Amino acid sequence: MAIGEPDYPAPLAEIADPPPLLAVKGAAHLLRRPTLAVVGARNASANGVRFTRRLAADLGARDLVIASGMARGIDTAAHRGALQTGTVAVLAGGIDVIYPPENEGLYSEIAELGVAIAESATGTQPQARHFPRRNRLISGVSLGALVVEAAPRSGSLITARMALEQGREVFAVPGSPLDPRCRGANHLIRQGATLTENADDVMEVLEGIVRQPLKEREPPVIEAPAAAAPDEDELARGRGMVTSKLGPSPVEVDELMRQCHLSAVAVLTILLELELASRLRRTPGNQVVLLS
Amino acid sequence: MAIGEPDYPAPLAEIADPPPLLAVKGAAHLLRRPTLAVVGARNASANGVRFTRRLAADLGARDLVIASGMARGIDTAAHRGALQTGTVAVLAGGIDVIYPPENEGLYSEIAELGVAIAESATGTQPQARHFPRRNRLISGVSLGALVVEAAPRSGSLITARMALEQGREVFAVPGSPLDPRCRGANHLIRQGATLTENADDVMEVLEGIVRQPLKEREPPVIEAPAAAAPDEDELARGRGMVTSKLGPSPVEVDELMRQCHLSAVAVLTILLELELASRLRRTPGNQVVLLS
Repeated sequence: MAIGEPDYPAPLAEIADPPPLLAVKGAAHLLRRPTLAVVGARNASANGVRFTRRLAADLGARDLVIASGMARGIDTAAHRGALQTGTVAVLAGGIDVIYPPENEGLYSEIAELGVAIAESATGTQPQARHFPRRNRLISGVSLGALVVEAAPRSGSLITARMALEQGREVFAVPGSPLDPRCRGANHLIRQGATLTENADDVMEVLEGIVRQPLKEREPPVIEAPAAAAPDEDELARGRGMVTSKLGPSPVEVDELMRQCHLSAVAVLTILLELELASRLRRTPGNQVVLLS
Repeated sequence: MAIGEPDYPAPLAEIADPPPLLAVKGAAHLLRRPTLAVVGARNASANGVRFTRRLAADLGARDLVIASGMARGIDTAAHRGALQTGTVAVLAGGIDVIYPPENEGLYSEIAELGVAIAESATGTQPQARHFPRRNRLISGVSLGALVVEAAPRSGSLITARMALEQGREVFAVPGSPLDPRCRGANHLIRQGATLTENADDVMEVLEGIVRQPLKEREPPVIEAPAAAAPDEDELARGRGMVTSKLGPSPVEVDELMRQCHLSAVAVLTILLELELASRLRRTPGNQVVLLS
């Protein structure tokens, strides 16, 4: 599908760098409907998964299509909750490459009932550097981004930042200060994101703008969390440094960033590379463990 | 202690209806120091209790005295966390009447290390109608009120409202939308209360005003939650109605309010009367059970 074609998502055409071509698999007509991005932690809590699934279904019942990144945890719950009402999976690799592999079943269901899109060429294996760019598409096809259970400096916060840059609404689900997975979302609320407990909270904001062209809306005033696109030089320099600081004991991602003197996006990208290579596991408290 | 005396709390002297006389037991000098009210649910979660105790200790370490109402749950945790650094118990009955009875140990410790105050005459047994008036004193002696785990339409929200009316700051600790005990606090945040995860969040707001006279500050813009002082006619009319709708199965307080067509403060007062008479038990989810 090329930019300018009728099913090309209208909000996506308005971002700074829309993909000229999108690979599409499934019900392309869903791309014409008002869409909300729902993203969050891969190592989500059981309650977070349950909450997200129900919220996605509730929002679907109010005619919102739910976009997400088909990652583990919150993303998967968002897609599953909205399978019957409409969901968009935005893939980091090629349209025919299923990642993570355990989501093969979900991918088939989305291809049948929902729609998957990708800007990478067919057959492209997802690499860490694809993810920040992919995140701009998740918010790009959407009127707003809702964040559930995001740790500080997580990929979900990058999606929230992309949403802001694109002039979209940001929603966040509050959580206990005792749960590190909630700190990123609580931070967004403190910065001005809409505190969201249920579908009503989302609709109250979106109903007014569903029919209003995106350009006319003022972007909300939220201080952007760290990080843009990863810098290749910094990545090359950082890979050895990050890996050397990891081991079988969990290390806090924040601590890692402080010690490495690298940008947040570089550290996140390197961690994602390790994770894609099955060399890294995430543990609660925004910590990571290097697998031998 | 009479209004005008040096230890009479300065912020209390500035409310609309300061008590002309306060009974005081313990370290009266604490009443001269900057104070924060910390209040919340009686049926608090284990995490809420742990969090409150630690937060009260952290705030105490930064020279804030912690005021609360010596109720079960969050109030007790707030006093306990601040015992070593300074705490004020504001009693609903006489200064010599310990309520709830299981807090006899806490009362003795507060009398020794902290301070207790009361406006009711010595020997007065606390009655439901005393509590809303008592709550105005908790916020009245304080620069702000922090709410942890408060259900919608709970007594803690009345304290937050009193704080607003008195031009004090309001802080609230966010929590999961799945926990009904967090809805009141999340509501306060949505209305403009400061989202609070730790002592830094409180100090950031209070440090600027600790030395600024209260009158000069503008009250924050928050829509006041329901309810003022209970109306005696409404109470007389409502007692039978409320009791008849209760039974051994848990009933949601919100549902009760809807069905009875009474004001929130009337229903809360009647429930508190029943609780004081040991005829009512609170259960999770802001529900109540009538004991035979």
